Order: sequence, then C-alpha cells, then structure tokens
Amino acid sequence: MAGRPNLIRIDDPQDARIAEFRDIRERDLVGRQAGFIAEGTVVLRMLAAAHCAVDGAFAAEKLLLLENRVSGIESLLAAFPEDVPVYVASAPVLDQIAGFHLHRGVLALGRRRASPNAASLIEQVRQSGLIAVCCGISNHDNMGSIFRNAAAFGVSCLLLDETCCDPLYRKALRVSVGSVLSVPFARGGNALSLLEDLDAAGFSIWGLSPRGEMDIRAIAQTSKLALVTGTEGEGLPPHIMQRFRTARIPQMPHLDSLNAATATGIALYEMARAQSLLAGS
Amino acid sequence: MAGRPNLIRIDDPQDARIAEFRDIRERDLVGRQAGFIAEGTVVLRMLAAAHCAVDGAFAAEKLLLLENRVSGIESLLAAFPEDVPVYVASAPVLDQIAGFHLHRGVLALGRRRASPNAASLIEQVRQSGLIAVCCGISNHDNMGSIFRNAAAFGVSCLLLDETCCDPLYRKALRVSVGSVLSVPFARGGNALSLLEDLDAAGFSIWGLSPRGEMDIRAIAQTSKLALVTGTEGEGLPPHIMQRFRTARIPQMPHLDSLNAATATGIALYEMARAQSLLAGS
Repeated sequence: MAGRPNLIRIDDPQDARIAEFRDIRERDLVGRQAGFIAEGTVVLRMLAAAHCAVDGAFAAEKLLLLENRVSGIESLLAAFPEDVPVYVASAPVLDQIAGFHLHRGVLALGRRRASPNAASLIEQVRQSGLIAVCCGISNHDNMGSIFRNAAAFGVSCLLLDETCCDPLYRKALRVSVGSVLSVPFARGGNALSLLEDLDAAGFSIWGLSPRGEMDIRAIAQTSKLALVTGTEGEGLPPHIMQRFRTARIPQMPHLDSLNAATATGIALYEMARAQSLLAGS
Repeated sequence: MAGRPNLIRIDDPQDARIAEFRDIRERDLVGRQAGFIAEGTVVLRMLAAAHCAVDGAFAAEKLLLLENRVSGIESLLAAFPEDVPVYVASAPVLDQIAGFHLHRGVLALGRRRASPNAASLIEQVRQSGLIAVCCGISNHDNMGSIFRNAAAFGVSCLLLDETCCDPLYRKALRVSVGSVLSVPFARGGNALSLLEDLDAAGFSIWGLSPRGEMDIRAIAQTSKLALVTGTEGEGLPPHIMQRFRTARIPQMPHLDSLNAATATGIALYEMARAQSLLAGS
C-alpha cells in the first residue's frame, strides 16, 4: 500500500467517503444525482487525460480500487493529480460496496465540468469539420460504439437529441473505450431544430438510411458535413428524411440492415475520407 | 391456445420434454451436448427459414414460448413445419425452467444438421467470392456482429480458426440477428493452415491490421478475396502478418483502434465494393 501518499483504505462498505460507488447497478438504472462511474484502466486513462487537459471537460473526483490491483497500475495512478483521493478495498469489501462482483476492480467517479450546448459546439466548427448527429439512439452499447467510431474517424463533435440515452452511462462509457471523454458532445433539444441550426451554419446534412437516395460514397467533398443517424429499430423519422438529403450504404437486400453503430461507423469513415481527415489514406 | 394443433402446455418445470431449456445461463457457460438455443422472433424466423431450405444446414427441434406471446406470432409459428413441437408455459413456469426472467419469452432448440469443414466451403467458392477468416475472436458480441456484417456485405462463407468462440452461442446468435444461420461457416483448424489452403485455392489474402501495409481501398479488384481478422486485443499474430499481405483502415492515431467487428465490417464493405457484390452501389 506504500508509494502514493493518498491511498486510503476502506474497511467499512458504509463509509461515507465512497458512498457514490454503492449499489452501482441500481444507480445505473435510476440515474445518478451527480457524476458518472468510469471503470477499467482504459477508460480511467482517458479520464485522467481529460482531467488534466487545459479546459478539460471532465474531472476525476475519486478512485476506488481493488487493493491487489494497485501494484500493476502505478503509471495510471500517477496520471491523476495528487489531490484526487484513491480509495482501496479488499475484494469482499469492494463487492459489498458495488453490490456485485467487480472482477476488474478499477473504478472512478467522474464529473462533467461543463455541459456545452449544441450551439456552442457548432460555433467551434466554423471553417471545416464533420459532425455526427444522433436521433433516438437508446441502446448504450450502440451509443458507446458510435463514440468510439467518431473518435476513430476524427469527428469534430457529436450532437445527441433529447431522445438519446446518456453516453456517460457506465456501459456506454466502457464500450466507447473512453471516447465519450474525448469527443465533444451536447445532449438535448429537438432533432429537427438541431439540424436546422446546422443547416443555417452551412453544413451539408445527410440522413443515413437503407432507403437513402444516394450512395454514401457519392457525397460531394465539402468542408462542413453532418451525418444523421436514427433509432435502432425505425431509423430516421419521415419528417427528417423528407427535409434533408439522405444517403445509403450499399448492402445485400436483407430483413435486417446493419447495426446502427456499425452503419454510422461506415458512413463516418466514408465522410472522413471525403474530407481527407484521415492519416494513411 | 387454439389454432395450431401441436401447442403443448407445460406446467411442470421438470418436464423432460423441455429439459434442454432448463438453466439456460449455466448451460451457456458449460456448453451444450447437442443443439443451441435461439431466442427472439428475428432469430427464430431465420431458424425456420434454415430448417425449411433445401439442404438447410440447421433444424429446429422444438419451441418453447411464453403463453401470452403466442397470439402475436402466428405467422412465425406457421413458418415452422407441423412436426416441430411447440411448448407453451406461463411466465412463472418459464422463468423456473430458464432459471432467470425471460422477458422475450420466445425460444427454440436448434441443431446443426451438418458441420461443413473449411475445405468443402472453399471448394464451393470456385469462381468468385469473398471469404472472411477469423483468428481468435473470443467475444460473443463481436462474433455475432461479424456474422451480421458478413451477411450485409454478401460474404460467401466464414472460416473460424480453432481458437474462435462458438457463433451458435446464444448471445452471438442474437447479436448476429440470426445471420449465423444464413452465412455458411466452418470452425476449427489452425489459422495458418486455413490460409495456406485459401492461398492454394487462388484467393488473394489480406490480413486486417491498423499497421497494415496498404490502404484497404487500394486492394486490387479480383474475383477471389479473403479478409483475415485477428483477436480483439492483440490483432493478427506476427507469423500471419509476415506471411500474407496486410491492409489498414485509415483512422485517427489512437490508443485504441476500431472494435474488431466494426473494422471487419468496414473492410468487408470495401472488399464487397471492389468485387461489385452490392446492390445499389
């Protein structure tokens, strides 16, 4: 337990200092008053980077570790400032805190320092950029996967309408391999009005749909592109399909098309290529 | 309960006729002696189609349904031959059978009629085709997702080396939206020897890696292509990277590259385009 001065041992699962980590799954379901739970070394490394960045959008509040994990993750712990407390517990105590068996045993409580609105994010993409807009993505795996894909293809920011799920939900964050902490996003507002704002800001807007009018590869190269993805089941609502241009990913005729996150990934890949955003292409 | 003559009511969770559906999760973990569990209407529809196809590779042995689901899925039930027994149970009985709460309440026991080997599948792709080879894909979500992508992009067959997980595992099957039942596959054998066989059969073989030598889009159009995907963490082993040509998906420099299934999807999309396999492109 030596080496880092602020390792604090927790023996009582009811200890108030780690209250935010109690009954993790139940709190996942009902929602948290403040903060979010990050888990695993990959996500915590992204949280440390976000915490330390100038104007970083996220802060790490505290860490809670399985005591026998500490000796393998010194470099990760060193990435957090000294004033972030690091609590450690034995496996039985940690399991009692969390309410289930945590085999990873590496947790953090994070907080969003500021929640930018869509207008401010759009304003930051004045000259050129690729924006992904999600309408009604309600599955946390898909949300996390969309962020991971957005990071891979250099998306400037993500705009999530008010019917999307929270990307800071524990599982979405994990599936994103922490990209939710690196790709700027705003959540809220009506999809149509978000898109009208993008249109007014000079973006070429493309709805993604198996019934899209144009092959995704035929989208003209332009400096400001926005891709719009709809819900997992129904896709984009008719009023958005009618108001904006639409693109399709060519595929075999099938009962079930591509998964929403995979389709978004392929479309972002094509759009990033069209914008010459990617290294090595 | 009327309408279909072979609806059989189960009141005793210990009834031998539905023994294969007992303790589903435990049997998922230890493996089944025979057969696989399909769940949900989408997967069952694919199973019915596979059962009825000429030379169909899969058979439906029996169905087990929550009794109040029956009246909404008549057309699905009608897709199965009359000699496939359909058992129905109340929610409490069904939950006792399965060992957990089954909110979907639509299950089938399926069986693979024949397990083709890699050589016979390769033989079937004599003139032209796109084959996906997986080495060490151990995550069932990724396996299911790779099948779904393979179906979307017209892959001729999938070859899984001996270190891959079983695509007929319940969750993989569900994530594939039943594509495991429609895309021919073989599982087993050493990856290198599988690839040598493909090479001998005249396939252009491309290993997929973030460190690949060539942009995936620059792959020359050819009638017989094979894409090789490696494990989620480590990627392809060095002896395969050295033996065959390799391709990369251009992306932002990152700690974590694309998810294995998403990367496979994008690569198959590019290769299917190169082969002009896709409608609407």
